[in-house]
Amino acid sequence: MTELISSLEAVDVRFPTSLELDGSDAMNPEPDYSAAYVTVRTSGGDEGHGLAFTVGRGNDVAVAAVRALAPLVAGLPVEDVLGDLGGFSRRLTGDSQLRWLGPHKGAIHMAAAAVVNAVWDLYGRRTRKPVWRLLSELSPEQLVDLVDFRYLQDALTRDEALDILRRAQPGRAERTAHLLEHGYPAYTTTPGWLGYDDDKLVRLSKEAVADGFSQIKLKVGADREADVRRLRLAREAVGPDIRIAVDANQAWGVQQAIDWMRSLAPYDPYWIEEPTSPDDVLGHAAVRRALAPVKVATGEHTHNQVMFKQFLQAGALDVLQLDASRTAGVTENVAVLLLAAKFGVPVCPHAGGVGLCEMVQHLAMFDYVAVSGTTDNRVIEYVDHLHEHFTDPVRIQDGHYLAPTAPGISAEIHPASVAAHRYPDGPVWQAEAGA
Amino acid sequence: MTELISSLEAVDVRFPTSLELDGSDAMNPEPDYSAAYVTVRTSGGDEGHGLAFTVGRGNDVAVAAVRALAPLVAGLPVEDVLGDLGGFSRRLTGDSQLRWLGPHKGAIHMAAAAVVNAVWDLYGRRTRKPVWRLLSELSPEQLVDLVDFRYLQDALTRDEALDILRRAQPGRAERTAHLLEHGYPAYTTTPGWLGYDDDKLVRLSKEAVADGFSQIKLKVGADREADVRRLRLAREAVGPDIRIAVDANQAWGVQQAIDWMRSLAPYDPYWIEEPTSPDDVLGHAAVRRALAPVKVATGEHTHNQVMFKQFLQAGALDVLQLDASRTAGVTENVAVLLLAAKFGVPVCPHAGGVGLCEMVQHLAMFDYVAVSGTTDNRVIEYVDHLHEHFTDPVRIQDGHYLAPTAPGISAEIHPASVAAHRYPDGPVWQAEAGA
Repeated sequence: MTELISSLEAVDVRFPTSLELDGSDAMNPEPDYSAAYVTVRTSGGDEGHGLAFTVGRGNDVAVAAVRALAPLVAGLPVEDVLGDLGGFSRRLTGDSQLRWLGPHKGAIHMAAAAVVNAVWDLYGRRTRKPVWRLLSELSPEQLVDLVDFRYLQDALTRDEALDILRRAQPGRAERTAHLLEHGYPAYTTTPGWLGYDDDKLVRLSKEAVADGFSQIKLKVGADREADVRRLRLAREAVGPDIRIAVDANQAWGVQQAIDWMRSLAPYDPYWIEEPTSPDDVLGHAAVRRALAPVKVATGEHTHNQVMFKQFLQAGALDVLQLDASRTAGVTENVAVLLLAAKFGVPVCPHAGGVGLCEMVQHLAMFDYVAVSGTTDNRVIEYVDHLHEHFTDPVRIQDGHYLAPTAPGISAEIHPASVAAHRYPDGPVWQAEAGA
Repeated sequence: MTELISSLEAVDVRFPTSLELDGSDAMNPEPDYSAAYVTVRTSGGDEGHGLAFTVGRGNDVAVAAVRALAPLVAGLPVEDVLGDLGGFSRRLTGDSQLRWLGPHKGAIHMAAAAVVNAVWDLYGRRTRKPVWRLLSELSPEQLVDLVDFRYLQDALTRDEALDILRRAQPGRAERTAHLLEHGYPAYTTTPGWLGYDDDKLVRLSKEAVADGFSQIKLKVGADREADVRRLRLAREAVGPDIRIAVDANQAWGVQQAIDWMRSLAPYDPYWIEEPTSPDDVLGHAAVRRALAPVKVATGEHTHNQVMFKQFLQAGALDVLQLDASRTAGVTENVAVLLLAAKFGVPVCPHAGGVGLCEMVQHLAMFDYVAVSGTTDNRVIEYVDHLHEHFTDPVRIQDGHYLAPTAPGISAEIHPASVAAHRYPDGPVWQAEAGA
């Protein structure tokens, strides 16, 4: 009998992070890190897990969007899906009725990410490989078959993508070995949340350096004087050789971003992240021209490959921060990595939240092994929250992500954590409601 | 007692339009025109109606998104809301958790549109004015207070917006009288759906001219030879003086759009609409440069004012097609109209679907009276579907929209139609399920 995808299930899982002001920034004062958590099952008894990250309210909308995709998935032959994951992604993101909700953006696209990642997780489990390794062992031809070039060809053709991948083929084995031994460089956002007081900022900044990180990040954008003070304190705490990125989380208009950043310049910020609306390609380009050599970083809200294409074409970013569940998962991120390689822009994935560190490490490691072939000026974001809820949590050592070795994409949440944090009926939320 | 918003309700309403291939185009072969239909009620017994348009599957996600917004609305004092509709819109689109699903895009933004339009409808009913007239009688200061300039100032400042509105003040009364007498020019998409055969295309094209339309539109993008033939037939049917727009509904890549349109050039297409991804500002600019003097039109999928800003800054469109429920309703569309006026680009609203004609006529008429002050090269799209379900349906006469005179935004659906078309439990869908 043909093995089929037998079910696709989504659960609303929320963690009450707002109680501690972990994750507080200029636009997200009180996030409750949440996931539309997806489990795909096959008639043969296999499963895969993926998630779309949200920050609380609205997680139910992401769950509804996953459920709207489910009829497109349930009943498909497993081997057909895994044999044509490019086609599978296009099926989800190209449905002629559902695409009206996007196209390729918002809740429906995030839901597609969760489903696509769950299916990559299934693929990794069945082949007994972590997804970074599974991807890194695909041929250049198999990899370009994942990409939907329809809207990309004015920036990246199939042949150019093949060339990039073929050039990186010779060193794959050495780089895989290097990763397994040394891991992939990380930076930490843990010290810099807006809700932390100065003492906590200084203490955590010093701890980050002691822990081997060569870059930290501070949230800015709510209070200019406080930002100057906090950046000065952080700079004093870590010394001149540690990179300090700052992140405005979209708080500013274009000229405001330029003005505000000039007051932070004395303390040598390495990059300014999300200076303005994430949709404003031309605005980012203007900010970048004005602020060089301070770098411009963005991507966690860049909703699809067409937007990334334009950021690259317009010279609007120095650092591309792809996200595991904003674009449509692993498959679309292969296109994003190829675009970045074409334009010679380093990819430093967005992470944190819940499960993002777990998932993006696979993408960055694949990039190193089989696409860009380098970790120069590349770091994966790291935040030390909520990893204990995952069955294959990230492992950080001396400022590096150690390469995951368990099969899949590391997005599985412990069943007990899912049960406890189900919203609104799990015991954690029932206790909140009672308090 | 203070009058409050007492409830915000959303219903999943779908019309089985796919059975007739009405609305069929290159990307939407079988749409079921649908609405997340919103009713807002006050403790004093008033109500307002708005909707977000979708094309079938996924309408439930839009409904879920409206329900996620409801707690932000219920319980607010009515006078506070109507006295600061700019602040009300920012409340909906800026919620620190819900904005993660966008920001300002996708299902959550469409839901905000439905709610914002329902509240404008309420405002119109309470002041006994159609919304176009309500808007046209606001002062320039009241109008700019609706606009969120945070991300716009590099293209349009508050002072520039005030100047535009003040320049248009002197002629408001004459233009209002002109509208009431003559209506606003329309064009019709009715002849050109891809699912119609050549005979129906020719017959409906001739009927459109006989009915007084000076512009028609044809869907293209699925089959190049067929497009050449259909455009030739339509041109023969209507003669040289009727404008024929063509609409690819995003079917092409950038170069493909340029090549395909060159084969249609002999039949003098007036504009090419949605030649490629709606997010591709730079791609549209390239298409426009290559195809001039054929015009480039887009906007029905342009998800917010920041995207419109860039289309204008980049010289990427000749015709701006705002949508009633893609951007966040009347309030954000005031900003879009001001941007278009600043850049001197005509606005020709997207309509059709269900309820879009009813809503956008108010925006175009307001633009004429109080913003651009002209109807030159401006036409509202018209499609002759589903108007019978509305309590204040559009009235078309001699190729013009007659100005609505009933209070509100004309988005109220007959209660019997709502009941019949509720999905999935209404009798129309129960009959479908049984068939």
